[in-house]
Amino acid sequence: MTGDPLTTPTPDLGRLYGVGVGPGDPDLMTLKAVKRIAACPVVAYFCKRGTRGHARRIADAVVTAEHVEVPMVYPVTVELPPDHPDYGRQIEAFFDESAERLAVHLAAGRSVAVLNEGDPFFYGSFMHLFLRLSTRFPTEVVPGVTSMVASASLLPRPLMLRDDVLSVIPGTLDEESLLRAITGAQASVVMKLGSNLPKVRRAIAAAGLTDRAWYVERASMVEQRVMPLAEAPDSAPYFSQIVIPGDGRRAEGVYE
Amino acid sequence: MTGDPLTTPTPDLGRLYGVGVGPGDPDLMTLKAVKRIAACPVVAYFCKRGTRGHARRIADAVVTAEHVEVPMVYPVTVELPPDHPDYGRQIEAFFDESAERLAVHLAAGRSVAVLNEGDPFFYGSFMHLFLRLSTRFPTEVVPGVTSMVASASLLPRPLMLRDDVLSVIPGTLDEESLLRAITGAQASVVMKLGSNLPKVRRAIAAAGLTDRAWYVERASMVEQRVMPLAEAPDSAPYFSQIVIPGDGRRAEGVYE
Repeated sequence: MTGDPLTTPTPDLGRLYGVGVGPGDPDLMTLKAVKRIAACPVVAYFCKRGTRGHARRIADAVVTAEHVEVPMVYPVTVELPPDHPDYGRQIEAFFDESAERLAVHLAAGRSVAVLNEGDPFFYGSFMHLFLRLSTRFPTEVVPGVTSMVASASLLPRPLMLRDDVLSVIPGTLDEESLLRAITGAQASVVMKLGSNLPKVRRAIAAAGLTDRAWYVERASMVEQRVMPLAEAPDSAPYFSQIVIPGDGRRAEGVYE
Repeated sequence: MTGDPLTTPTPDLGRLYGVGVGPGDPDLMTLKAVKRIAACPVVAYFCKRGTRGHARRIADAVVTAEHVEVPMVYPVTVELPPDHPDYGRQIEAFFDESAERLAVHLAAGRSVAVLNEGDPFFYGSFMHLFLRLSTRFPTEVVPGVTSMVASASLLPRPLMLRDDVLSVIPGTLDEESLLRAITGAQASVVMKLGSNLPKVRRAIAAAGLTDRAWYVERASMVEQRVMPLAEAPDSAPYFSQIVIPGDGRRAEGVYE
């Protein structure tokens, strides 16, 4: 990869890696994630002010003193509500600026591993950098274990079997859209709960599925909690989801 | 875990592990999968007659001569079509018998790692053993990287962003059900393609989404192929899927 210094005085471009580090248990990182992080001189990650962030913590045993660390600290997420017009403007400017910080490294030939909880393309924060940088620099996504399958792995029923359709649903939708998405499938996972939990509960009750629904908080982490939805608390942290396993229906005439 | 030989002459039960070994690239196994396989004296896996099977190949570097291997060879899957009444009977009997082969090891105190491509609860074959054994023996599911996110990682767009709903759909459904599941979401993944590909194509065309759909074959394997659906072949192998990334719609009034 080293260019001829006589004809190519500029260095080769670094590579941008979106690395899925899994749902929380460091042992749920893939071998590839570990190798990619170890091979990159620069490690970047999103975090809130005053914290290292969840993704960085997961990779603790892999990030060393040799790495250049680029924490990308979210601005003002407490000061403004997400539906305030300035919120969108400020956060887009933050993503622009974060992308340019990484672009400096990439242009200088230093590869960057962006740590992403779960999987980078499954609602992952890496997308903000991917959409800004993947046409300028060679980019690779390292898929990861999603919090969805980590949550499902704790239940007494498979998530999907046979001809089940699965709906993966953000809890941010309005109640009617939630109900439609849930009733359109045999299995459902509702993510991004937080303060949306009461609304999601109502939609699941309206679908008549409360008895089949599970609440899973912080799957694969030390503090993980699993319980029937009926016993769940009234407010949920961000790292929680509701899982409704499928009933294993078969398409007409098909046996698998 | 060793019982007192004077009061408990029978050995402790072995543990049953459903181990997700990921979509194909051995480096997409998790550290946990590697550790669990290494620690189990018995390794079991489904395969077709005359082959070792895909899951076993993925774990090649981890399974050693010290392991007792239990290949569970599918019966007659060629001789009878899946809609033949005898097919269901024979394959259920095969799963019963496979479960009993593992039960012998578990009852004797030997833990068993069942290798499962992708994730065990995401249409995984491990479910057939889980449903038969998890109430008799201590059982743990080790989640894995799904072929779904591995396929999506190869595309120039994130699979889901912002408030996208994702539908995961078995290609075995009839055309009308396929169309309904695809149009009910912003992003879709159609699995279990094989001979269902022409029907799935028609449903995607009817939804007006052919231009946004990708065909991905054998994601993360050496022979992987990625192309727009319009350029895809007429027949697909089992390890292929169609991925329609979401358009990143936002729920009303929410900025994330």
